[in-house]
Amino acid sequence: MSFDGSPPLVSLADYERVATEQLGEQAASYIFGGAGEEITLRDNVAAWRRLALLPRMLVGAGRRDPSVELLGVRRPHPVLIAPTAFQRLTHPEAEVATARAAAATSTIMCLSTLASTSPSALADAVPEATRWFQLYVFADRGVTREVVAGAAEHGYEALVVTVDRPVLGVRERELSSQVRSLTVEGVTDAFKSTGAATPADFTAVIDPDLNWSDIERFVAESPLPVLVKGVLTAGDARLALEHGVAGVIVSNHGGRQLDTVLSGADALPAVVDAVGDQLDVLVDGGIRRGTDVIKALALGARAVLVGRPILWGLGLAGAEGVQRVIELLLAEVDNALALMGAPRAGDLDRTMVARAPWG
Amino acid sequence: MSFDGSPPLVSLADYERVATEQLGEQAASYIFGGAGEEITLRDNVAAWRRLALLPRMLVGAGRRDPSVELLGVRRPHPVLIAPTAFQRLTHPEAEVATARAAAATSTIMCLSTLASTSPSALADAVPEATRWFQLYVFADRGVTREVVAGAAEHGYEALVVTVDRPVLGVRERELSSQVRSLTVEGVTDAFKSTGAATPADFTAVIDPDLNWSDIERFVAESPLPVLVKGVLTAGDARLALEHGVAGVIVSNHGGRQLDTVLSGADALPAVVDAVGDQLDVLVDGGIRRGTDVIKALALGARAVLVGRPILWGLGLAGAEGVQRVIELLLAEVDNALALMGAPRAGDLDRTMVARAPWG
Amino acid sequence: MSFDGSPPLVSLADYERVATEQLGEQAASYIFGGAGEEITLRDNVAAWRRLALLPRMLVGAGRRDPSVELLGVRRPHPVLIAPTAFQRLTHPEAEVATARAAAATSTIMCLSTLASTSPSALADAVPEATRWFQLYVFADRGVTREVVAGAAEHGYEALVVTVDRPVLGVRERELSSQVRSLTVEGVTDAFKSTGAATPADFTAVIDPDLNWSDIERFVAESPLPVLVKGVLTAGDARLALEHGVAGVIVSNHGGRQLDTVLSGADALPAVVDAVGDQLDVLVDGGIRRGTDVIKALALGARAVLVGRPILWGLGLAGAEGVQRVIELLLAEVDNALALMGAPRAGDLDRTMVARAPWG
Amino acid sequence: MSFDGSPPLVSLADYERVATEQLGEQAASYIFGGAGEEITLRDNVAAWRRLALLPRMLVGAGRRDPSVELLGVRRPHPVLIAPTAFQRLTHPEAEVATARAAAATSTIMCLSTLASTSPSALADAVPEATRWFQLYVFADRGVTREVVAGAAEHGYEALVVTVDRPVLGVRERELSSQVRSLTVEGVTDAFKSTGAATPADFTAVIDPDLNWSDIERFVAESPLPVLVKGVLTAGDARLALEHGVAGVIVSNHGGRQLDTVLSGADALPAVVDAVGDQLDVLVDGGIRRGTDVIKALALGARAVLVGRPILWGLGLAGAEGVQRVIELLLAEVDNALALMGAPRAGDLDRTMVARAPWG
Repeated sequence: MSFDGSPPLVSLADYERVATEQLGEQAASYIFGGAGEEITLRDNVAAWRRLALLPRMLVGAGRRDPSVELLGVRRPHPVLIAPTAFQRLTHPEAEVATARAAAATSTIMCLSTLASTSPSALADAVPEATRWFQLYVFADRGVTREVVAGAAEHGYEALVVTVDRPVLGVRERELSSQVRSLTVEGVTDAFKSTGAATPADFTAVIDPDLNWSDIERFVAESPLPVLVKGVLTAGDARLALEHGVAGVIVSNHGGRQLDTVLSGADALPAVVDAVGDQLDVLVDGGIRRGTDVIKALALGARAVLVGRPILWGLGLAGAEGVQRVIELLLAEVDNALALMGAPRAGDLDRTMVARAPWG
Repeated sequence: MSFDGSPPLVSLADYERVATEQLGEQAASYIFGGAGEEITLRDNVAAWRRLALLPRMLVGAGRRDPSVELLGVRRPHPVLIAPTAFQRLTHPEAEVATARAAAATSTIMCLSTLASTSPSALADAVPEATRWFQLYVFADRGVTREVVAGAAEHGYEALVVTVDRPVLGVRERELSSQVRSLTVEGVTDAFKSTGAATPADFTAVIDPDLNWSDIERFVAESPLPVLVKGVLTAGDARLALEHGVAGVIVSNHGGRQLDTVLSGADALPAVVDAVGDQLDVLVDGGIRRGTDVIKALALGARAVLVGRPILWGLGLAGAEGVQRVIELLLAEVDNALALMGAPRAGDLDRTMVARAPWG
Repeated sequence: MSFDGSPPLVSLADYERVATEQLGEQAASYIFGGAGEEITLRDNVAAWRRLALLPRMLVGAGRRDPSVELLGVRRPHPVLIAPTAFQRLTHPEAEVATARAAAATSTIMCLSTLASTSPSALADAVPEATRWFQLYVFADRGVTREVVAGAAEHGYEALVVTVDRPVLGVRERELSSQVRSLTVEGVTDAFKSTGAATPADFTAVIDPDLNWSDIERFVAESPLPVLVKGVLTAGDARLALEHGVAGVIVSNHGGRQLDTVLSGADALPAVVDAVGDQLDVLVDGGIRRGTDVIKALALGARAVLVGRPILWGLGLAGAEGVQRVIELLLAEVDNALALMGAPRAGDLDRTMVARAPWG
Repeated sequence: MSFDGSPPLVSLADYERVATEQLGEQAASYIFGGAGEEITLRDNVAAWRRLALLPRMLVGAGRRDPSVELLGVRRPHPVLIAPTAFQRLTHPEAEVATARAAAATSTIMCLSTLASTSPSALADAVPEATRWFQLYVFADRGVTREVVAGAAEHGYEALVVTVDRPVLGVRERELSSQVRSLTVEGVTDAFKSTGAATPADFTAVIDPDLNWSDIERFVAESPLPVLVKGVLTAGDARLALEHGVAGVIVSNHGGRQLDTVLSGADALPAVVDAVGDQLDVLVDGGIRRGTDVIKALALGARAVLVGRPILWGLGLAGAEGVQRVIELLLAEVDNALALMGAPRAGDLDRTMVARAPWG
């Protein structure tokens, strides 16, 4: 893919650069910013680079198989689309374009509660995409129940409950820009019924008192498997296991909540050690390279979620841009499996990754 | 808060930037400079950023309580105003403005011996502020006793004896600028009676031979609880305990005394381990974020003191500027308590903080 | 050596700088680029610099002897010319010029399978050069066997089988430039018979399914000693030993295959520990200084291979440039042996090298 | 001290900056350059900054005593002038000016064998300065013996035998500039009798085969105590002890011999552990601050030597410049002793220094 006769975009970093130039400043501040000094935001990317790979040679790497098992189902590859809010800020086709790219690449898409497209509208528009639903639990549990029921009804296959957002993080780029006064169109009708109209409104209705008992109740009532997203410690991973969830997503919310928390890459091993043999552990944050994906799997993750790069592709070229970003990443995964001497994703293990001496 | 139609100031770093631009060079050299290469000055800030946070999720964080117990009294929050000299260099209303902001935010203010406002004048002007008095011990103990008696008489609630200033540090920005020849107005009459007229004069009358026996005598004679400020090692903390003080402030004098000494953040744990269960341990130096405050508490400090940021606010907008700086920091503390899963300040402990992998 | 009246070139870094300026962009992209973010490419150089030397004094260093034993033969020094592809991109005299410089400096030259000069043509042109042959194993084993037989017939003294290239690395500078569409002249006739015409074509015919059994068969059939190039772990080094090879070259393919793998300098010690007493262990990647060579030997390598610097010299001044680069490096080796207090290369050992405190 | 109405020079870094501007490029290349990539040159300075200080408070620091015992004699302070070659390149009064400053500050001056002033001429010009003589051992031992006898005769109190210079280091700034062809005036007549005329000539007549037996013979024959300069390891320090020397100077020759060897700061502790209770251990390299001196003493050095800063002062203002540099450093030492809570140099110990967390 190339734009305006400029050189082809051959890495996710190329997409980032061009997308940053082309998106307006408001959207860029919202999409790319993080909390505080953005130390965690930067470290999400840097932490993967601080890991060194130890490849094996001469294993016969002519055919590669990146498939993984996720919630008991074999998936063709380990890359998922992370939930991100308000994709209409990035492209007019918003989540519909993203879902089309997901379908084209056999990628699971997580739809955000704060999406610009309602779960039902997306299901109607792209029924062929495999979809999970990311849930913010509202203080109004009635509204919440409606949202969950709607997701199940429209073919979403799992619930991803975000647990690291009792309050909104200190995001200075948003405070400095005027993104807070944006009017958001298209979010779930249920959500709108709370009276919220701006991003700040929407986030204000999320329940700050959510706790593990609530999670246990959700698991019991949910027609869908429940994952919790936002766990960073072994202790919380064990609590997740005790309260019956199907999986945990090691995540710091893309560096947007509390600055100086650990990156996904650095938090992952302790979580895998604690619950990796009993729960599906996924990770997000800073995945920019096929080698990052390989490192996550070698450390014990089942799969990874990718957020901002999807938006870079979406902003540049809608569904085609998202598809190209995913294909580029999957091509790098394939290449890395061959060069690691781990032609099947399942061949990867912890002996193949180490703290880098350059770190 | 915003100045000249420019973007709103949303972090202490914003205040630093604008204050540095607006204050004259003389004041800026005196306020912002440190000793030697300023390695410790920079590390005071950097050391907090080298600590990673390990937050807990789903604890129910809807209501937060930042209150702490200090010298046996519950205080509404853990942020204090550090003593800083000659605030008239920064703003004509000087310590009076600072005290008004302290009162408005329920913050304890430490008045410096080298203040531009005498203890009695400040007490008369802002009786509603909770005030501690920072004491430099003069070679002339008669003058010293007068100063202490005056502080007690005017409602100061604790004595903070600075112990890391037997001689003045090598501060090159001061040597290069002409700040040394500034005439200081308004310092304590007792102090003036020594004949001192310039900052160099004032610092020259401080007793370089102060020792632990002197401290023990002060404690015995003092009508107020005594804290020592400037301790950096476990050994000195134990000596402080043995000589009867009520608390220690882990401090390197804002990086202004001896370059390459440890930051407060790095010196704190050993001091807490040595005496934290018997003395109140406070810390200052480099606190710029709510997350820095949270880290100090998690490492065992009872409270923190903030110096330069107060002066940034003071220089920009007097009492209103100081108040806004404190409120901004307290809002970040509240946010961090919620996102740490430690809604009460007392919920924080050492398992929630670790040396950062990016450090 | 000096160009255009500019200052003399007194280090390999000088050659790099001038060569980068003078070579066209296409060649420079191909020659200097690496895989991915080029983290490993940069670390290949940086890793040697992270090692500190611990020299001994007063050993009598008037006469130095840099000779080493390699495959049972004493060689006058430990520097070899690494195989690099398509040298005609760099200079019209290509491998012939390189071989002349090798002969003039008693340096072993490894000819690449992907050379611009066929093994027979090079042997005819510079019979006096000691030559090894680097082998890419083609999926077509008949072609491969022809290539090997030809190399043996024309006086090549060892086979260096590259094992870290089942597929081509993700090299973005190549993807961005048009080097992929270059037509390559002069490669082995056998290779051409596969129908390949461009670099991408050539690399596409290499067998991605090569495994250790293939290596064992090669060793059994080969009239020449076999080394494997591209091993980075102790496990693979032990497999190499078990399958009968004569030596291993610790290498990451000049940072051109999989980004974030360990540098040669960091991978070497584990390989030496595993097999160093039974196999010749060589290393390449990032050697730019005599001190780098000395560190490799101190860590247990028998010899080092140098790649890009040879091309810098070749590009600037053909055979004379290559010769000057090698002589410069050997002069630094001699100097370092004297200053280390290790006048014979064999005097070097692990006590003389340590992780640098500045690393 | 101030030049051209510019701000006063308040640190050695100020002297470095101004001296670099004012000295011609040739002299600057010779004086300031180091070997190879100049990694060790830079680390000599950086290594002291990687050490953190742990000061003690309230010890009574009104009076400080920086005196140390050196070769059995109490000296008023621990700073020595390191031997540096050809000071006439820096200032026309050369070593005579340096010696005058040494006398004025009670500092021991080490005269270099490669000085621009002969030992006898210096003794005649500045008899009141305490002088040591730095010896390069020539292949011609007769010349060497003459030099030693002359030094003893003219009141030099110790011999400092440089042992890390069997050959000249790879100094690229010298190779690039034309300093090698400089004609040197005024070196020892004995030395001149070898026929040497340029720096390269002079260094060429130094004996590369010097060994520990030679040192033992020197010690036996010498009328003066013998120190060896250039030891970096515990092993060599033990050999020095066994061969009868009076002291060792931990030194890497100002980073001018072999790049990537350890700095004096990092090599010092092992040497002190090995022989510190039996020999005087001194250290040089990168001392720029009073805190650097204090760290060296705390690690067990008896004294430090200062090289380039002396030349900065000399180049800027002859004897007065050197004197000011030494006084500035001694004032910082005094300040640091007070602020460390170690009013006597002998109060310093290893518990007061630690690897810095910012290092």
